[in-house]
Amino acid sequence: MLPLSVMEHAADEFLDYQGMGAGIIEISHRSPEFIAILTRCIKLVRELLDLPPNYQVLFVPGGPRLLFSAIPLNLAGRKAGRKMAYVDSGLFANQAIAEAKKFGEVFIWGSSREEQYRRVPALDTTLLGSDLCFAHITSNNTVYGTSFASLPDTGSVPLVVDATSDFMSRPLDYSKVALAYGGFQKNLGPSGLALVVVREDLLGYAPADIPLMLHLKYFADNQSIGNTINTFAIYMLDLMLNWIKEQGGVRAMGELNAQKSAMVYDVIDSSKLYTAVAEPHSRSHVNIAFRLKDSDLDASFEKEALAAGLYALAGHRSVGGFRASMYNGMPLEGAKALCKFMKEFDVRHSR
Amino acid sequence: MLPLSVMEHAADEFLDYQGMGAGIIEISHRSPEFIAILTRCIKLVRELLDLPPNYQVLFVPGGPRLLFSAIPLNLAGRKAGRKMAYVDSGLFANQAIAEAKKFGEVFIWGSSREEQYRRVPALDTTLLGSDLCFAHITSNNTVYGTSFASLPDTGSVPLVVDATSDFMSRPLDYSKVALAYGGFQKNLGPSGLALVVVREDLLGYAPADIPLMLHLKYFADNQSIGNTINTFAIYMLDLMLNWIKEQGGVRAMGELNAQKSAMVYDVIDSSKLYTAVAEPHSRSHVNIAFRLKDSDLDASFEKEALAAGLYALAGHRSVGGFRASMYNGMPLEGAKALCKFMKEFDVRHSR
Repeated sequence: MLPLSVMEHAADEFLDYQGMGAGIIEISHRSPEFIAILTRCIKLVRELLDLPPNYQVLFVPGGPRLLFSAIPLNLAGRKAGRKMAYVDSGLFANQAIAEAKKFGEVFIWGSSREEQYRRVPALDTTLLGSDLCFAHITSNNTVYGTSFASLPDTGSVPLVVDATSDFMSRPLDYSKVALAYGGFQKNLGPSGLALVVVREDLLGYAPADIPLMLHLKYFADNQSIGNTINTFAIYMLDLMLNWIKEQGGVRAMGELNAQKSAMVYDVIDSSKLYTAVAEPHSRSHVNIAFRLKDSDLDASFEKEALAAGLYALAGHRSVGGFRASMYNGMPLEGAKALCKFMKEFDVRHSR
Repeated sequence: MLPLSVMEHAADEFLDYQGMGAGIIEISHRSPEFIAILTRCIKLVRELLDLPPNYQVLFVPGGPRLLFSAIPLNLAGRKAGRKMAYVDSGLFANQAIAEAKKFGEVFIWGSSREEQYRRVPALDTTLLGSDLCFAHITSNNTVYGTSFASLPDTGSVPLVVDATSDFMSRPLDYSKVALAYGGFQKNLGPSGLALVVVREDLLGYAPADIPLMLHLKYFADNQSIGNTINTFAIYMLDLMLNWIKEQGGVRAMGELNAQKSAMVYDVIDSSKLYTAVAEPHSRSHVNIAFRLKDSDLDASFEKEALAAGLYALAGHRSVGGFRASMYNGMPLEGAKALCKFMKEFDVRHSR
């Protein structure tokens, strides 16, 4: 879900971008008009994340799944043993781990598998040896509705963050981060492109023989348009970044998202019908995974939610139950409508 | 450039797809509404290309550049020597060759480098040994405006075709093709996604340790939505495929594109001012690369063309000069407007 003003802006100029007589999706990724948009996006990402000057902003085809491979391929050459630390906090973390194992040795720095990922693992930074190429965490885990309240300080071991569901949804201290990556589709725009912010000194370790589209330095050297970029996604990103800035930046987004999710958690915690998947100290500000204590009511909940105009509440197919997402584009009114429905459903069905 | 009716259709429902109260870019790639679009696209690709039943239709992130790596990674395991034949017909062919060299041995089956790629190489199929994993050609070369008039019959050596600028722009005999791939952005929609059609028996040669997003069987096994797909590109593809079908299919597209390009070539060939890059028997039906015999007039041509509303006529930065593209979305009127301008410019500037 994207903000209505962003969607309306895009709809208004879909057929004719700034009087060119053609839509943005029809013009070349090398046209001055498109380059201006791309350049503005890079500047806004820097500004909104308060990035230090020695970081590059890259746009890579696909989404996080491509980065799951690209990151070990680019960084495992930092140390002779190709050893990398990964935190096992759920489904997507495991997909990242599976890719990393193809290209080096994986040390599991922490895992909450035995707790069915209902919390994020505690992280002991003294376990990080100097032989590690990097340490990887998933800052927000959409499936279970968990997130790290803050980023660990990994010292000289570069911290790599899968921020797919987190980018610009709350303030994070990017001075602790060596590389962060994520698809646009949660908080920043449509699907099909990934944002990467990376400390420049990490770009020099990729061997020349890795696939070009996984070679981060290629994107840095070519302002991400060495190949034909997904122009529509960049165009929408520009609109979203400007909108985030107008709302007061990432801090304001964090406050809004916290407010929305707290409202829903309040309904869950004060009800005998609902139960949250995530433990309180690990709760995400953007995803609320929950179950009905009586799963016989699942079908009714789904049907009545749809009838109330509440879409996309099904939980991830790997865990079932329900999930409410409070990404940047969801207005406060959306959270209120959900809470209202959940309370009324509770009254109707509590026994 | 996309057909106006396609653009208008997309603009009309940009804010509200079929009464869902959300735009297509806001809904999940796993929603029934999106799956219906994706399924329709696969069916229409099959129908429009007249694909044999043992072919799969896949959608892969990015564009052809990712496939330049994925194809050798998926197919070089077919024979022990990892030997692959590539035809060197220009810039993008060379990019494909550079990637293939990372993953196996490349045999240059033919090259027109010494002719500055002004024609496509003659292909001698008796040079194809049984030790070859596949033979690769670029069916249409955008930079020079050249194309193969027909596909070679490579017998038991699988023919792989980079059809990025060719897909559905003219009839090709797909029974000769083992794998064809291309970005959407020339004839089929917006940038950011590639179409792959592949004979099923070729999907079994990829080792398990290649990057997942380059593993074609993964896409085949998951109907191309194992990862979050570029939903907007698929939505636009559906509109384009329906439009192509309405126009009379790929044969009608081929006739229209041939008519448009012949008009422009006529202007060039009957003028003392212009000269075509491509030799007559290698001329593309969708790209016309040309130069002004007096390059002092280049700046005037560019400026006056822009003033006449003719955009995107600059030649590729590697060859200079000018290039007119007659992809599916360009109406006959567009070609006529270009011809009119070129004739008038000729009259004004011939000496």
